[in-house]
Parts: sequence; C-alpha cells; structure tokens
Amino acid sequence: MKLKYELIHKDKNGNARYGILHTLHGSYETPIFMPVGTQATVKMLTPEELKNCKCGIILANTYHLWLRPGEDIINKHGGLHQFMNYDGPILTDSGGFQVFSLSNIRDIMEEGVSFKSHLDGSTLFLSPEKSINIQNKLNADIIMSFDECPPYPVSYEYMKESVERTLRWAQRGKEVHQNDKQAIFGIVQGGEFADLRKYSAIETVKLDFDGYSIGGVSVGEDHITKYKMIDYAVPYLPEDKPRYLMGVGDPVDIIEAVIRGIDMFDCVLPTRLARHGNALTNYGRINLKNAKYKDDLNPIEPDCDCYTCQNYTKSYIRHLINVNETLGGRLLSIHNIRFLTHLMEEIRTQIKNNNLLTFKEEFINKQKGENNNEMS
Amino acid sequence: MKLKYELIHKDKNGNARYGILHTLHGSYETPIFMPVGTQATVKMLTPEELKNCKCGIILANTYHLWLRPGEDIINKHGGLHQFMNYDGPILTDSGGFQVFSLSNIRDIMEEGVSFKSHLDGSTLFLSPEKSINIQNKLNADIIMSFDECPPYPVSYEYMKESVERTLRWAQRGKEVHQNDKQAIFGIVQGGEFADLRKYSAIETVKLDFDGYSIGGVSVGEDHITKYKMIDYAVPYLPEDKPRYLMGVGDPVDIIEAVIRGIDMFDCVLPTRLARHGNALTNYGRINLKNAKYKDDLNPIEPDCDCYTCQNYTKSYIRHLINVNETLGGRLLSIHNIRFLTHLMEEIRTQIKNNNLLTFKEEFINKQKGENNNEMS
Repeated sequence: MKLKYELIHKDKNGNARYGILHTLHGSYETPIFMPVGTQATVKMLTPEELKNCKCGIILANTYHLWLRPGEDIINKHGGLHQFMNYDGPILTDSGGFQVFSLSNIRDIMEEGVSFKSHLDGSTLFLSPEKSINIQNKLNADIIMSFDECPPYPVSYEYMKESVERTLRWAQRGKEVHQNDKQAIFGIVQGGEFADLRKYSAIETVKLDFDGYSIGGVSVGEDHITKYKMIDYAVPYLPEDKPRYLMGVGDPVDIIEAVIRGIDMFDCVLPTRLARHGNALTNYGRINLKNAKYKDDLNPIEPDCDCYTCQNYTKSYIRHLINVNETLGGRLLSIHNIRFLTHLMEEIRTQIKNNNLLTFKEEFINKQKGENNNEMS
Repeated sequence: MKLKYELIHKDKNGNARYGILHTLHGSYETPIFMPVGTQATVKMLTPEELKNCKCGIILANTYHLWLRPGEDIINKHGGLHQFMNYDGPILTDSGGFQVFSLSNIRDIMEEGVSFKSHLDGSTLFLSPEKSINIQNKLNADIIMSFDECPPYPVSYEYMKESVERTLRWAQRGKEVHQNDKQAIFGIVQGGEFADLRKYSAIETVKLDFDGYSIGGVSVGEDHITKYKMIDYAVPYLPEDKPRYLMGVGDPVDIIEAVIRGIDMFDCVLPTRLARHGNALTNYGRINLKNAKYKDDLNPIEPDCDCYTCQNYTKSYIRHLINVNETLGGRLLSIHNIRFLTHLMEEIRTQIKNNNLLTFKEEFINKQKGENNNEMS
C-alpha cells in the first residue's frame, strides 16, 4: 500500500469531500494544504515547527533539487526524508512548472524540453523519463508526471497539441517509474477549454494513476476561469483517488476548489507573504510594516493557537520586520501556515456538517472586513 | 537582591573562578558566555532555541533599540523580557560602544556625545543620564555605565583624559539610576596602559557597582596586549562581584581570560560566523561552503548534543548555505552557540578540578588540528 484515499463523507451541498489519505509516512485528513519546501526546506522553518503548525504533507521541487544539490546527494542520504529530516509525507513535483516558468529559452520536442538553467544559463534537458528518474532518487511519497505547462492564454489548437503531448509524456513517465513505494499522480491540462479538460481527464485516468492533479489553474487567470477549469475536469476523475489542485493557496480559492471536489493544495503564498511582512487573518491580509502596529501589544490573532500568536505582539513582529531580522519572517511564516492548516480543519468540519457553502459566505464576508486587505 | 555573585571555587592554578550569578530571572553558573541579541533578537533564533542551547544571560544593544523601535515601545510591553519573550536574564550595554564604532562624525563633550545616526545621518546626543534612562525603560536585569570607547591606539594623554571622563560619566549615570531591580556595572578603561587600567579599576570600584566590566579589549589589539589589559585591571576588582569582559568570544581568548579571573563574556562571533557558513568545532573553524562537505553525511560534530548535530548532515547544511536558505545560518547559529555554552561547561568543570591550565593546552592543540581553520 503506497497510497490510499479513503472517502469518508461528501457534503450534501456541492462536491466537497472529507477523506483520509493513507501514506507510508502516516495518514492525513483531507482536504489538506501542503506547504512548499522548494529547496528541501520550507523557508525559514524546521520540521518540528511544521508539525507544531499541524502540517501533514509538504512539497519539494524537483527542478531546484536536481540543479542543487543534485538528486544523487539526496539519494545518498536515503532520500528527501532523511536529507531534510522530515518524517511526514513528501510530494515532489515533476519540474515541468519551473522549466516553463523560470526559463525563457526552450525548445519543446516530443522527446522532452531543452532549456537554459535559471542559475547559470547552461543548457539542460528534461524528459518524462528523466523527471521520474530524478524523483525516484529523491524518494518522496508522491511523485508527479512530467507535463507541459503552457502559458495563458494559448490558442485552442496549441492547447490540443499540448494536451496530447502531455498524455504521451504521462504514459512514458509511468512506464519508467519503478519504485513501488512511491505513488505517482497524473496531471490534467487543457486550459480554459471545456472539451480539452474533459478529454485530458478521461485519457489521463485511463493510464491509471494513484491520484490526479489539475494543472494550469494558477497561471494568472481570473477567478471565474480558474473555477471553471476545475469544474470541467472533476466530473471525469474517479471518486476513490485524491484530487490535487497545483499552486493554489489563496484562502477563498481553496474553499471554492474544495466545494468543487478538490482534496489537496499547495502554494508558496503563506511563506512568501510572511517574508514580505504580511499576515493572513480571518479579517483579510494585514501588513505588519504598517505604522499603526508600532505599539500594538496584541497578537496577530488573539484566537490563533500558533507559536507566534501565543508569544509575540504585533509591535514586536513589526519591529523585527522593520529592522530586517529574519525572525520576523519566520514568526509570520509560522502564523500564515497555521492559518491555512486551521482553515483546512474548519473546512473539514464544515464538510462533515454539510455546511461548507454557508461557511464560505461567512468567510468571504469576514475577509472583506476591517483590515481591508492592506497587503503591500 | 537584584544581583549576587557567589564565588564557589578558585582554580588552584591561575585566577580562574567558578561561581554562581543570582539574578531576578534565575541563577547561572559562571564563567558564562552571553549570546548577543542586538535588536532584541539573537539573530534567527527563538528564546526556546537559546534555552535548548543552554543559554543563560543574553545581551541586547541599547543604541540599536533606542533608534528602533524606541525604548518607550519596549517599556510599554513591560521591558525587554516581555517584548522579546525571553524569561532568562538580560543585560543591556550602554550604547557607548556603538556610538564610538558606528558613527564617524561626533563631538565628545563633558555633557555627552553628539553623533550622527548610522541609519539616517540625523544628529543624536547620548549622555550618561540618557543612556541610563533608556536602559531603565528597557528594564534588563543588568545595565552598563555609559563610557567612552577610544580607538586603539591613542596617546597616553588622550587615554588619561578619557579615563577621567568615563569615571565622571560613571558617577553621573549611577546617580540617576533609580530602578532598584536593575543591577548596574561599571566599566574599566585605560587601553594598554598599566597605570591607567589600575587607576580606572580602583576609582570605578570606589563608586560601588554591582559588577565590573573590562572595556576596550576587543578593539583590534593583538592577543598579548588583550591579555595584558585584563591582567592590569583584575587585581583591583573585588572578589565578591562579577567581572565581565566585553565583546570577546573567540574560544581561546575566552579560556585565557577565564584564567585571568573573568566571569562573563559576550560576542556576536558565533552567530556572525554562522551566517557566513562557518562552524566552530573542537578542531578549529570549518567552512561549510567548502566543496568537500558536498556529500558528507556526518554531523558537524558527532559528539555535539545540539539540535543541528542531532538531526542534520554537513551535506544538508552546506546545501542550505549554498542556495541561500536562512535555515542554514539558523542551524549553524544553534551549533555555534551550543559550542560556546558547552565550552563554558567544560571550563567550569576544569576549574573545579583545578585543571584549567592543562585543559587550555589540550584545547589549543586540538584547535590547531585537522581542519586548519578553513574559515572564509
């Protein structure tokens, strides 16, 4: 048993699902938010801090780890778990997203993608087989198919070709995946085209993956389009497999996607916002650099059970951010990650109570509240 | 009882002392090393991590906190302990060292020092009274007299004038110090001049402080001169008060100073070295950026009980440093601080065994060993 999704309850209103994802590194309730540890570290935080934030699965990025320190060094440790000292489940992406977003010069061929390293400009080549080989060495619990991530928008014709190519790549990757302790997910693409999303979903499911991801949703579309992309694909995904929406971490987007049947999310949002001095709260984002927090002796959120809110005032965190002390970003990262894991706890409770739609309205109203989203 | 030094044992060889410093925030064995939390944070670390490193007293810098966030904001919290969430003892310096080391343009008057802010060039004025007032508001356990910190070398005549002025400043500061929960230390100056050190010590002791610091030792002199500066002053300091050598953190310097009768040390060395990828070890400094650690699966020191050495390989730490992930500097800070607190434990044991002189020779031989001090 390398991965098993157990569907426990469906919200009677909408498609939201409460379930449990069983992995070789523990069982975790879904829907779940997965913090991103790009370079084998969730920026600024230790594994113990992630656990205290009630994190389950975390992500690492194949492209970055392939470049530095190289998959062989990580494999020499036994894999990512040992390398970064994280004993919960880890998911690696395929590298596809970074290849298509970080490198400008590239040549997309049937064999794979030729591109220039974002570090030193050297020419690199990634193929479905190479991506899976690297991910096998990184030895995460869940690995991803290598897909093409087209920009938005592209023509229908281009997207159709791309979807076909991604399907062929998915099959090739699956064929070389030999590690029977690693689950592998397929990725549904197709942009904003309903029939291509449907086609991509049906054909990807035929390849029989351990879970299914919906890709291309985070690439700059408006919210309505994003939600449609999910709606176009979900009906064709099996109920007994987990569904993962890549790169989405905005609280409202998460709730909307859960209502549409998504189980797993990842995003750099909570840690990136934190490093820029921003906190996620129930009343919208707040920017701790704002002068009004200078002598505010309250925690970010009085009801929050995170280490930061239990021990530090907004005034102290503002000071740290203001004088460029890294502890500031670290304390905000802890709060923001805990904010999202707590939101997921709420979401799961609301699903069990068949109440997620009502919760969504209340949550959105609060988010529009007093703080007025003062993020810089 | 705001502060009490209890002398327990003197090494039969040399002047090393083992004692206990009783503070309103707990009792701590001496000799002790105090990490520096310049801006009300020991860079990158939480109070819990400092405790896990077996830290006791920590330092904060009056000059920096006066400028940002300002002493009133900290006082509104109740003081530094509440502001930075540290419930062990805290010591604040007087601001004098920063005034004389960070600002180029200044005017030293009897009243105090006029200088330009290192942040925005605005003109600031610090006097003995102002320094104590700020330190009263910061509310640390131990505060320091405001002294002049002359560069090295200066003429005998200049140093004599400076010592006299520092004595007048010490008296003025002591007179305005009203907070009976804060101990106040006097500072012995006098550069490399034996008679001025003696004079400064005798006259400072006459003012009856709760402890005595030896200043001006860290300002770029050679080791022999440094040690002489200590030797010139210590015989005139009372046995029943703690002795603090400011700004010294090199392991060998610490041992040499303990042998000369010093009880307390502070330095940014362990955290600064860490942020540049360097680790203190029993076999000298090592630079984790060095390619030879790329696939080194051992901890920095197999015998070290710190969080870093218990959980991470040199290869992983090297990776973090190499890709500019702050967790790297954080893990090295933990190790380097624990290295020094562990060294102090060793030193205390050796004093109790009347064996510190022998230990020093062994330690120095090891430090010259295999790693060859590869620090960058």
